[in-house]
Amino acid sequence: MNKPIDPSAFETPKVTTGPLPASRKVYTHPEADPSLAVPRREIDLHPSADEPPVPVYDTSGPYSDPGYTVDVGKGLPRHRTAWVLERGGVEEYDGREVRPEDNGNVSAEKLAREFPVRHRPLRAASAPARGGGASEADGGGSGARPGLLTQYEYARAGIITKEMIYIAERENLGRQEQLARAEIALKHGESFGADIPAFITPEFVRDEVARGRAVIPANINHPELEPQIIGRNFLVKINANIGNSAVTSSVEEEVEKMVWATRWGADNVMDLSTGRNIHNTREWILRNSPVPIGTVPIYQALEKVNGAAEDLSWEVYRDTLIEQAEQGVDYFTIHAGVRLAYIHLTAARVTGIVSRGGSIMAKWMLAHHKESFLYTHFEEICDIMRAYDVTFSLGDGLRPGSIADANDRAQFAELETLGELTKIAWDKGCQVMIEGPGHVPMHKIKLNMDKQLRECGEAPFYTLGPLTTDIAPGYDHITSGIGAAMIGWYGTAMLCYVTPKEHLGLPDRDDVKAGVITYKIAAHAADLAKGHPAAQIRDDALSRARFEFRWEDQFNLALDPETARDFHDQTLPKEAHKVAHFCSMCGPKFCSMAITQEVRDYAAGLSDNERADLERQAEEATKGMAEMSEKYEEMGRQLYVERE
Amino acid sequence: MNKPIDPSAFETPKVTTGPLPASRKVYTHPEADPSLAVPRREIDLHPSADEPPVPVYDTSGPYSDPGYTVDVGKGLPRHRTAWVLERGGVEEYDGREVRPEDNGNVSAEKLAREFPVRHRPLRAASAPARGGGASEADGGGSGARPGLLTQYEYARAGIITKEMIYIAERENLGRQEQLARAEIALKHGESFGADIPAFITPEFVRDEVARGRAVIPANINHPELEPQIIGRNFLVKINANIGNSAVTSSVEEEVEKMVWATRWGADNVMDLSTGRNIHNTREWILRNSPVPIGTVPIYQALEKVNGAAEDLSWEVYRDTLIEQAEQGVDYFTIHAGVRLAYIHLTAARVTGIVSRGGSIMAKWMLAHHKESFLYTHFEEICDIMRAYDVTFSLGDGLRPGSIADANDRAQFAELETLGELTKIAWDKGCQVMIEGPGHVPMHKIKLNMDKQLRECGEAPFYTLGPLTTDIAPGYDHITSGIGAAMIGWYGTAMLCYVTPKEHLGLPDRDDVKAGVITYKIAAHAADLAKGHPAAQIRDDALSRARFEFRWEDQFNLALDPETARDFHDQTLPKEAHKVAHFCSMCGPKFCSMAITQEVRDYAAGLSDNERADLERQAEEATKGMAEMSEKYEEMGRQLYVERE
Repeated sequence: MNKPIDPSAFETPKVTTGPLPASRKVYTHPEADPSLAVPRREIDLHPSADEPPVPVYDTSGPYSDPGYTVDVGKGLPRHRTAWVLERGGVEEYDGREVRPEDNGNVSAEKLAREFPVRHRPLRAASAPARGGGASEADGGGSGARPGLLTQYEYARAGIITKEMIYIAERENLGRQEQLARAEIALKHGESFGADIPAFITPEFVRDEVARGRAVIPANINHPELEPQIIGRNFLVKINANIGNSAVTSSVEEEVEKMVWATRWGADNVMDLSTGRNIHNTREWILRNSPVPIGTVPIYQALEKVNGAAEDLSWEVYRDTLIEQAEQGVDYFTIHAGVRLAYIHLTAARVTGIVSRGGSIMAKWMLAHHKESFLYTHFEEICDIMRAYDVTFSLGDGLRPGSIADANDRAQFAELETLGELTKIAWDKGCQVMIEGPGHVPMHKIKLNMDKQLRECGEAPFYTLGPLTTDIAPGYDHITSGIGAAMIGWYGTAMLCYVTPKEHLGLPDRDDVKAGVITYKIAAHAADLAKGHPAAQIRDDALSRARFEFRWEDQFNLALDPETARDFHDQTLPKEAHKVAHFCSMCGPKFCSMAITQEVRDYAAGLSDNERADLERQAEEATKGMAEMSEKYEEMGRQLYVERE
Repeated sequence: MNKPIDPSAFETPKVTTGPLPASRKVYTHPEADPSLAVPRREIDLHPSADEPPVPVYDTSGPYSDPGYTVDVGKGLPRHRTAWVLERGGVEEYDGREVRPEDNGNVSAEKLAREFPVRHRPLRAASAPARGGGASEADGGGSGARPGLLTQYEYARAGIITKEMIYIAERENLGRQEQLARAEIALKHGESFGADIPAFITPEFVRDEVARGRAVIPANINHPELEPQIIGRNFLVKINANIGNSAVTSSVEEEVEKMVWATRWGADNVMDLSTGRNIHNTREWILRNSPVPIGTVPIYQALEKVNGAAEDLSWEVYRDTLIEQAEQGVDYFTIHAGVRLAYIHLTAARVTGIVSRGGSIMAKWMLAHHKESFLYTHFEEICDIMRAYDVTFSLGDGLRPGSIADANDRAQFAELETLGELTKIAWDKGCQVMIEGPGHVPMHKIKLNMDKQLRECGEAPFYTLGPLTTDIAPGYDHITSGIGAAMIGWYGTAMLCYVTPKEHLGLPDRDDVKAGVITYKIAAHAADLAKGHPAAQIRDDALSRARFEFRWEDQFNLALDPETARDFHDQTLPKEAHKVAHFCSMCGPKFCSMAITQEVRDYAAGLSDNERADLERQAEEATKGMAEMSEKYEEMGRQLYVERE
């Protein structure tokens, strides 16, 4: 997933702050732990609506809180450190020293500013527990629980962490008030065997994490993060990719990329930086990020060997894992499923190996004629991941890069190996998600989902698109948004965004926003289709606003209020038009929506007899039809043949 | 489907002409009738590709033919008049006189210029045949065939028209040369019971039209049109909407809207003009349009009664049908399924009746407390439609305008009535397609398709989107593109586009293009998923170009070559970069795609023993997995419970 960002697009060194229109940040306090303050956004409606504010999931962190003063040189508050220390089982230590190669051996004058504060890292205090976590008896009350460190281990031990309580509150949003409606939505949705409850409890979160069916990417060294869950029984999440600028004039620009993506709804950000200043830039991002940050450590490892894949080694890679884990990266993409025996399976493909990580490893294996060190050292990788609770994102290095290559033997051989590795990682106490394709035509998407669930024991699927056709470069947010909505419906837990510049160039601010909004659409459409109990609240509120010509409410409830308002104003620029009871489509003379008020008055004025009469007529009209239609089907081709 | 176009966006009075990049217009001559010249576009590739040009379906008419000189005051050549006259059964007559109310009683100085040439209209020579067409014996050789007029009647009589021969040639594109591949695609696709052949013959076209499963919208008074078929066993088609400007400074602007939409791939255009100058503007569009033109006649009828729906009458409506049929409109949206007994079913909806035509009729019925005159006069409407071979597009006046209203009783009651009307229209010898929703969440889309096929005897479905969520005004080309791709896959024959300005304002040129390209993506994704035998040719050619860094070929094969090139140049502007063997994502130092060449060399260099050994290893790795996975599933929850 190789999408760095066009540096020139981020030249203004400022971090975007402030609330979205008509929006307030609200913090609620879960019953299970009122000390926690869980954010959500509430969108206020016009008084004429006589409706409560609409609660929406908020990924933007303190940046959208007018009561919070941003200081990127200080970083966000580190609330979660106390939670980690309280649970115990960790030790603070000096940590690895930053070396020149961590920043690409950049010269002093080109070195990105170091983050002003240096925090000593935490890691598991003892050797990792073998066998998938200890029983509750091992723990010993609310104090230190030797042998437990990751969210997965706590979950399997039956212990609910603060992160889990936080997440339950965060996912529920307005559900408490909507339970009656929730049951209806669930009854009508089609979730393909997912198991979405009407109401999320901390125990439900724990259970899903314990099953491996959901992950909470939350490195113990990234305490600035607002905990978040990824799993198919929760809201579908989306991911945006950022990357460092070739020449970083300001670290604030790098922070802004992350802030900008999360402002529009990115639940997660991957830092895919290459080249120079990777280490320092990542530090700035992590210290200022309220969302989980992922990386592909092989990218930095490759930089450390000057871009020569054949010079990579387990030692360089291991060193990079520790370097990044100490900084607080929440999940690592690791392409350990690209095995030597699979490489020749890609030779006849139309587009070979298109994953950067996959091709780096293929090149290394070919150079050495050896099995991938990511595969042979997988247990050691698990031990490192577990010591910081870095979540695995098992990479799909052999994903198809074209419609022609979708669902081929190379792709599925790797997926089966990822299934094998998932079980090893769980056994080591780690959290795991699985990356998926790529370019897949619509009729081959569901098989990807079904096979992933089966092979990988329901570990969360995290897919790029998929792109449903290859013929629209410049519009691949759309070709992939179609596939993303579908695979999200089928069960994918997180959708990796694609911008309009995919395959062509580096995304600028507008591209990042277009990618994020498109993927919010896909994720929300998936939530609706799965029958997520609270998803339709926002659709209904917006549709009522639209129907009642509350233009401001319609803009404010939109995923992108600025664009909605701007498009409206291009045709009807005057302020008066925003309270007008008509729109530009039909104009003031005739209005479809106005007629419905007449219909309502008419329906309300019907006597019981009149209504019964109409019902009878409607029944007859449609019943007659049903009969006729049945008859027609019976006759079927016969009818056609007879009449010829 | 109410989307007029922002007039200010079309101020430059010029019609866009000339070929798309690297494209040639090629005319081929079908074996069954070499006198016909059937257009397609061929995209030439760089010599280094050593590949034949890629044939693509061409909707742009002579405007993209550099050998054709455009003269909008003369109109396109009227080739098809000879075909109609040769078939016989028609008479030329004086036609209805244009009246001031046809142009909204506009004052002389504001009247749009009349089209310089007046053609006398044709109509069926005799009373329409009852009972669905005559047998072949009625015809009497290749001369006049009394009692036959519409494509449906000819098809049922077993007669292949020139339009059908033309269409077979047009739909096949490169299929002849791709039959081996075609069988593969068909085997792997999922067409949900459609019956796509590897090769389209004129007889197959006739058979599909005879079954009512496809339509050829081709008014005998629109001989400028290049015949086209709409049905689920053919390429999925898309439609764009245009509308007149409030003040028409130039009729060429109006023609340009149509030319612009078809240049980017609109197979059909609906003229949704309201207000003044409707008649004259439509004449200019029709005389210059190579694609079928549809209208919603109730819009003009409403103008004739000064916008007061209650003043509408069958007489005014009938007069409008004849006026437009004589001009050559190819299909009419007729909301005859909105019955009096269904109106109260919409009273409890979130967004009531959102179709303009539906609400006009609802208002009329409420004002008069009478059944709709479109329903009570349906047989007379059929007689008019048949006399000119105007295709029915039975409108969904009660389509849902929000997720909340999807698949409700009002919507489905109307659909059942449309099924009843379909059979009446067929019996009258008319061609029929059915309009569909609207706003529908993903999990409710397939039911719409299945019910439509069942109720309407497989008549082609023509849907607006559907929009899969309400929360993204400003991005409704995307919310609806998702639904359009899916319903196209399930069997919808034509997708009515939605622009980014939907719900907000009038689309400008860029919006029209964005809508058309998005819907070309949806239609093509559907063709791929259905297993259309020729669809993947373009994907594969583009992916090979991408993989081999043939940047120019990648742009030229794209749905929108201009945007693809522009996006590339924003990051790598130099001409040299278009022949560079790298892209902006990884840069020149490391390239995923370059590594695949190493993989290919490696695979090619493997000895038989080495290859066998690798195969064995791959088998073992994945077979072990399969076993482990089976075992895991068996153990299932048990495993989880045991370990707790």
